[in-house]
This record gives sequence, structure tokens and C-alpha cells, in this order.
Amino acid sequence: MSLLTVGSVAFDAIETPYGKTDKIVGGAGTFISIASSYFVQDQNIISVVGGDFPQVTIDDLNARGINTDGLQIKNSEKTFFWSGKYHNDMNSRDTLITELNVLENFDPIVPEVYQSSSYLMLGNLSPSVQSTVIERLKVRPKLIAMDTMNFWMDIAMNDLKKTISMVDILIINDEEARQLSGEYSLIKASVLIREMGPKILIIKKGEHGALLFKDKEVFFAPALPLEEVFDPTGAGDTFAGGFMGYLASTDDLSFENLKRAVIYGSALASFCVEKFGTEKLLEINKEDILARVDRFVSLASFDMNVSVK
Amino acid sequence: MSLLTVGSVAFDAIETPYGKTDKIVGGAGTFISIASSYFVQDQNIISVVGGDFPQVTIDDLNARGINTDGLQIKNSEKTFFWSGKYHNDMNSRDTLITELNVLENFDPIVPEVYQSSSYLMLGNLSPSVQSTVIERLKVRPKLIAMDTMNFWMDIAMNDLKKTISMVDILIINDEEARQLSGEYSLIKASVLIREMGPKILIIKKGEHGALLFKDKEVFFAPALPLEEVFDPTGAGDTFAGGFMGYLASTDDLSFENLKRAVIYGSALASFCVEKFGTEKLLEINKEDILARVDRFVSLASFDMNVSVK
Repeated sequence: MSLLTVGSVAFDAIETPYGKTDKIVGGAGTFISIASSYFVQDQNIISVVGGDFPQVTIDDLNARGINTDGLQIKNSEKTFFWSGKYHNDMNSRDTLITELNVLENFDPIVPEVYQSSSYLMLGNLSPSVQSTVIERLKVRPKLIAMDTMNFWMDIAMNDLKKTISMVDILIINDEEARQLSGEYSLIKASVLIREMGPKILIIKKGEHGALLFKDKEVFFAPALPLEEVFDPTGAGDTFAGGFMGYLASTDDLSFENLKRAVIYGSALASFCVEKFGTEKLLEINKEDILARVDRFVSLASFDMNVSVK
Repeated sequence: MSLLTVGSVAFDAIETPYGKTDKIVGGAGTFISIASSYFVQDQNIISVVGGDFPQVTIDDLNARGINTDGLQIKNSEKTFFWSGKYHNDMNSRDTLITELNVLENFDPIVPEVYQSSSYLMLGNLSPSVQSTVIERLKVRPKLIAMDTMNFWMDIAMNDLKKTISMVDILIINDEEARQLSGEYSLIKASVLIREMGPKILIIKKGEHGALLFKDKEVFFAPALPLEEVFDPTGAGDTFAGGFMGYLASTDDLSFENLKRAVIYGSALASFCVEKFGTEKLLEINKEDILARVDRFVSLASFDMNVSVK
């Protein structure tokens, strides 16, 4: 089935204990659509860039089967730019620069050819932009997932709750789940958040894996223990892209298949952090992904079928 | 096979956001031997208490099949006492009182009937006491596991490393693994720590589960997401007790069986935190444990056997 992604296409400048980059291509929409391109061929993106954005990157996205008719190019403006520095433990970072630029007045346009999109992934963006896209789709997609972050909880909680009420799946991290619900216990948080609208909730816990909640069911997905996390930027978006790409390609919303989608998302994210930006994601192929998934299987599988003496 | 446990038998006074206790029975040796009593009938304990320790508790341990010939009672002295207060997130705590009392000059005695113990669990104690017990066993047990804590890394690293070099399995938490190895990455830490002696390493991550390392193999065990952690005291000891009790009862050191032991340990620990001290552990039965293990299975199992379209 077709997947429509809404999310920033941007420049990042990143510093980690392993090195630093000049401006490189990043953005939630970029990571999501590259990750999902390993699963779906029929893919669309809604975003906006400035005249400074390289055409070659857009060509690369097109070559991956990503239709960019909905990627606006504002020639007289500049692309969204974020710069950040990760601390030694890679679990926290300081934002050094945020230049909204083209995102400041982003009015998402839904091209006619996008109207038939069955799956919609709303990457982290202003919740009002996210809901605008839903409202501009004439037919509600079969499945809508969204990511967000604590920033929007701080400054636009009402808008955010409205958008959350419109989606089927919310994908956030543990800290965000606690802030959104006001509950420290993730189990209690999962109940309160699903009362806000989404029937399915994924709580990402970084190096500690992810939790998937639907109805009375819970799934705990492992994270691959890595020797080194080189650059965590985009890992959450990549998870979402792998997750939604797999769902759109299989078009099966059973809990068993949602679990598989979480494992594929985790596998893609485990590649993402191995190099700066999208570099590693662009190098891999389907065989690499299947081999990585096998590592998740061996990491997490156990068989209790020996009775206690 | 028989299991010998070395560990404190003590009084705790605990304050959590849910309430507080007066002096209740605690101590690593207590939690370990109660947890393992669900698996092994032939069990011994080495410890020391003062004249203030209730005989009824010793009778209860005996009723669980725990031989207490090695539990010294120093009638003119007082039992080890620890008091602590947990913070709201339950992941950190302040120690309010530590009275070593009988533990200050603890000289562990190994009764003759203990000499045939096949499995040895060294609970968190001074590393010199731990190594003394190993040295006083005429025949080295088939399997020796130990727990420790950062306190001993701070004040007795040389003694600690000597003891670690004598054991087969080290069971510590993530923070302790990082301190012991000097490596933030748990994968790198797991290599360095196993170079210190233990062939098998378990890194406990609290609410995030546990990692089991042996040779080139890694297993990621989930933790059960709980609505409430009422009192985390003794959860790590209970994990170790369930783990070693299961291993001693099955006497199978294959990686598959080590995984099962980790799941049993995690299941026991998930009960421990539901009430103060040993209260919940004393209430459950084998059926409760098997039902809890089933929840771990459903929580963590997935099947990737659907090919990507």
C-alpha cells in the first residue's frame, strides 16, 4: 500500500564524542522516507526546503521511489537547520542552533496524486501542521501514525492533544510518555495516552528497546546492544520509517504483525546510529536488514518448555 | 543439586512513596534463599545475626528446607541494620542508616554438612568474606556466582577483583558494570569484565530487563512492565536467588537453560517489588511463578516468519 510521510527535510550539523559534521542532510521526513523505502515502493512526502537545498538529494529520494511532488522548494528562503552536540553518554544533547527558516510558515500542500495514500506517517512537526495534513486528505488514510516531542507539549499542548485524538498510532519516547500523561509508570501512562485517541501506542526507550501497547496486549522489543553509538540523530525517525514501511508493505494490522514492524523499525534504527546522519541507512540493502533482524531474534528468543523439577 | 548461599540476614527499615516500615527482616541472604527455595529443596545458608533476631524467621527458613547450621547467632551483638528512603522514581535511594553490627567482624563458618554443596551463590558482601568462603570449601563447587555493588569498587577494588577472578558468574547492574570496567558501552564492558575471570556475566538493568553474556552469545531478557513498584529492596537478590535456584534444580549450564534461569529470576524479582521486603515472596506458590513466566513469554515473543513483500 502507498505511504505518505510528512516531516522536515533539513540540514543538521552534529557533534558527538566521535567527531563532528558540517551541514549534512537530515530531518525527520528524510530519515522516515529513506527507512521506509526498503519496504514500500509507492511513497510520497510532504515537506518544504529552501533554495539552498541540493537537488541531488531530491533526485536520490526520487530514485528510491519517493514522489516529491509535495516537497515545496522556496527558492528565496533557507532550509530548516538544526545543530546539536551530544554528551558522552549519547543519551542527552544540547541544541546549539535552531533556524526554522522555511518551517516557520509551513503550509503543507497535498498534491492530487497523494490523495489515495493508504498509510500516513506524521513525523515530528508542529501539531497544527500535522492535523492540517489529515484535514486536507479527502479520504482518511487506513492508518495514521504520528511522532511528536516534548517541545510541543511545552508550547502547544492543546493543539497536540487535538492531533493525537485524530491518529491511530502514537510513537513517542519514555520521557515524552511521562510528560504527556503525567504518570511515571509507563503502564499507567499507556492507558491514559490511549484514552486520548490512539488505539496503538509505541514507547521508545532508546538503548532499552521499545514497548508496544494495543488493547490488553503488551510487547517488549529489545534493542540491539551496540559497541558504539556513533550518532543517535534520526534514530527515532528511522524506527518510525521502518515500522510504517513494513506495515504499509504487509497491510496487516494484527498484533503479531505490529510486533514484526517494531522489530524491523528497531533493526533500521540500529543501522542509523552507526554513522553520521543518513550515511549508513543509504549504504545497506535488504539482505543487511534481514541479517540484522536475525540478530534480534537470537538476542530475544528463549524457550521455557522445560518443566521445573 | 544443593545450593549454598552466603549473604546478609538483616533488618531493613524502608520508606517509599507508598509507605514506610519499621524494622523488617531483609538482607541479601534472606531474599536469595527464599527465592531459590521455590526450586531447590537442598539448600544451605552462611550468615550471621545478633541476639535480637527473631527465632521464628529462622524457623520459617528451616521450614522452606534451608539448613541454617551456618547461620551464626551472636547473642551479645545486634543484627545488621539498613535503613533507606526511595525517591519518587524508585530508581534512586538515600541510605539513612547503616549499622554493620555483627557483619563488622563476620568470619564465615562452613559447617561440615555444607561441604558437598554443588552450587554457590555469593550474595553482596565484603569481597574478602566472599573469597574466604570459597577457600574454606574443600571441593570447589560446580558453579560459583557472585553479586557485588559499587561500594566495594570504591573501597576494596583489589579484594573485589581477586574474588571476581574466582567465580563463574558475575551478576551486577549496569551502573556497576560501567564502574568496574571503566567502559560506558555495556558490550565493551562485558568483554573486559569477563577477562577478569567469570565466563558468564549478567547485567541487570532494573525496569529495562537484563543482559546475559557467555562466549559470543548475548540474551536480552525483558522486565515485566509494572503498574507500580512498591518497594525495590531485595529485587536484585531475589533475581539472583531465582536464577541460581533454577540452575541448581536443573543442573544444566547450556546457554538455553541459562536464559530460562534469567527469566525465572526476573519473574521472582517482579513479585518481590510488589510489597515491602519479603512479604510478597512468602505469599506466592509455584503456580503463581509459572503464570508470571507465561506473561514474560507473551511479552517478549515474536515470530518474524512472514517474508517482506
